[in-house]
Amino acid sequence: RIHRIASIPGDGIGVDITDAAVEILNVLAKTIGGFEFEFTTFDWSSKKFLERGWYMPPDGLEQLKKFDAIYFGAVGWPDVPDHISLWGLILPIRKSLNQYVNVRPTRILEGTKSPLADCQREDLDWVIIRENSEGEYSGQGGTSHESSPHTVATEVSIFTRVGIERIMRFAFETARSRPRKKLTMVTKSNAQRHGMVLWDTVFYEVAKEYGDVEIDKMLVDAMTVRMVLQPKSLDTIVATNLHADILSDLAAALSGSIGIAPSSNLDPTRANPSMFEPIHGSAPDIAGKGIANPVGAFWSAAEMVRWVGEEKAADGLMKAVENVTARGVKTKDLGGGEDTKGVTKAVCQEIETL
Amino acid sequence: RIHRIASIPGDGIGVDITDAAVEILNVLAKTIGGFEFEFTTFDWSSKKFLERGWYMPPDGLEQLKKFDAIYFGAVGWPDVPDHISLWGLILPIRKSLNQYVNVRPTRILEGTKSPLADCQREDLDWVIIRENSEGEYSGQGGTSHESSPHTVATEVSIFTRVGIERIMRFAFETARSRPRKKLTMVTKSNAQRHGMVLWDTVFYEVAKEYGDVEIDKMLVDAMTVRMVLQPKSLDTIVATNLHADILSDLAAALSGSIGIAPSSNLDPTRANPSMFEPIHGSAPDIAGKGIANPVGAFWSAAEMVRWVGEEKAADGLMKAVENVTARGVKTKDLGGGEDTKGVTKAVCQEIETL
Ligand SMILES: CC(C)[C@H](C(=O)O)[C@@H](O)C(=O)O
Ligand SMILES: CC(C)[C@H](C(=O)O)[C@@H](O)C(=O)O
Repeated sequence: RIHRIASIPGDGIGVDITDAAVEILNVLAKTIGGFEFEFTTFDWSSKKFLERGWYMPPDGLEQLKKFDAIYFGAVGWPDVPDHISLWGLILPIRKSLNQYVNVRPTRILEGTKSPLADCQREDLDWVIIRENSEGEYSGQGGTSHESSPHTVATEVSIFTRVGIERIMRFAFETARSRPRKKLTMVTKSNAQRHGMVLWDTVFYEVAKEYGDVEIDKMLVDAMTVRMVLQPKSLDTIVATNLHADILSDLAAALSGSIGIAPSSNLDPTRANPSMFEPIHGSAPDIAGKGIANPVGAFWSAAEMVRWVGEEKAADGLMKAVENVTARGVKTKDLGGGEDTKGVTKAVCQEIETL
Repeated sequence: RIHRIASIPGDGIGVDITDAAVEILNVLAKTIGGFEFEFTTFDWSSKKFLERGWYMPPDGLEQLKKFDAIYFGAVGWPDVPDHISLWGLILPIRKSLNQYVNVRPTRILEGTKSPLADCQREDLDWVIIRENSEGEYSGQGGTSHESSPHTVATEVSIFTRVGIERIMRFAFETARSRPRKKLTMVTKSNAQRHGMVLWDTVFYEVAKEYGDVEIDKMLVDAMTVRMVLQPKSLDTIVATNLHADILSDLAAALSGSIGIAPSSNLDPTRANPSMFEPIHGSAPDIAGKGIANPVGAFWSAAEMVRWVGEEKAADGLMKAVENVTARGVKTKDLGGGEDTKGVTKAVCQEIETL
């Protein structure tokens, strides 16, 4: 079997960690056997944007559709306003390829620890299901009276019944597939009384189909408190595009480092390729220094491997990663002394012993 | 001097902690001398709403305008949808009385600790300045095709140049008044490209008037990581209505408990009374049990005392509160064994020794 992967390293440490991910994926395929990856790299970066004025060519999305999956590094660079870079690359991919689910698992890897004094490894094991196609990231809104003292600008969040129903179903299915069968729905319907109220309504409607899943509801502000003070009480979490963006970064920090956290942008219908990317950004401050933590990239790669159907290889890769962190081979953000290459090499060696 | 205070206990533990706050404020005035509080209580609660169909009477806001300050407990009760209770009471007060600033200081009180393993008391000392009049809490938006499969609902965030400028000025003044003179501006202008871009633009414009204040900019998701992993790097923080709502709850959790955190809803022009309330909610699960932590209520009361001009009394009250927590007289959320009355009594006794 050949899995055709579009690789978009992007900017900054996106390049370093994509290189590392491609390296371990090739070693993985070779070691496990029975499948191969065929990578095609797209140099759609902020550097190129500054040279030629665009990130993706006009047929960029069409090109991506031909692949089995997309691997994404990071996008964003100080010389380009962030809303230009993100709306030029990552956001249109998520939206146009119908990747309406963003899955963000968080747990404390072997050999690492939470910054929370009382949180043991087994106390934090969450999956955040992020709505990835609408809500606060609709892009709608605008600006009036731009250069006057009474400028007014709006951001319009769009919530549709169809959009909410499908993310809720995915969240319930995820919760059902996990041992604790628990789903916490996050909202801010006390202050936001239109779209967020629809969000709540549809949640309770869909819940009726999943009597075996234990549910509860949290306001997004109070949710941060619960994550910090009662991590063990949470399991699967479903939240809007913005709320889950915030909560998943917090989750990553509470599990030790933003450098380990993966994300899967899924089109569950499989009509389009899904996209896998670590949740960290391009980190201009450490870019090119070779010290980025590649673990988030490896975990994202493992999720991609699972998505294309190579379950055994995915498990093997995660086992290799955790054997390495367990031995203390870690980058600085996890309290270790290794660089990107050192960790990558150690993971490759672990894979070879699988 | 007589300070006329409108007291709105509201729901659940709002009642317990307002009682406690009124008690200590009276003891404080008596002990320090030279001023008095005259309290008028408004029973605008969810219980009353269920009986009579309204929270505030039609002239409610006019009544409040006659006071020097408003003390608010909490609103929200399971029998009333949250968006009804909040838009029936707290949100119209904040908006109509031009309380466009919400100040939320956070630090680790004496005798208490952070849930973060490596965070010492002196490592966390923040003031969050929350925009309190527009943004994500504009209330605008609506629902179409309500009972059809293609329902669409919107939430519209409104950002105005006037609204942003005034909150930025307040934030810069606050930063300037603190020893470190540092202001971190929070945004999500990478994904939200209209109103949030205006937010950024106005921030940098206003910054030019405050050359002595050190500034930086964080995306709201990455901000949660920084709060957890580098608390010491932060000082004054300015954020939108929703972002600051979320970050201030997180801040409270990181400082030990949501039960200690105060908030001041200010009309800095002083044309209208300002409102002081702990940031916690009505906590139906512990309501009426007499175990709510009154510290957030006392700290909010201290901020009110300061606002009406009794600086010395405000300092005294906070000193009394921290002498009590330092001695280990604390409610359960802070790891102690006292109830609301026990802590209140201890604080009263401390005040009497001032
Ligand atoms: C880069 C940015 C648009 C993105 C987001 O907000 O979705 C990132 O923060 C993430 O979490 O994937
Ligand atoms: C009660 C609710 C409307 C309120 C808010 O979101 O502003 C509360 O969470 C707060 O932080 O004051």
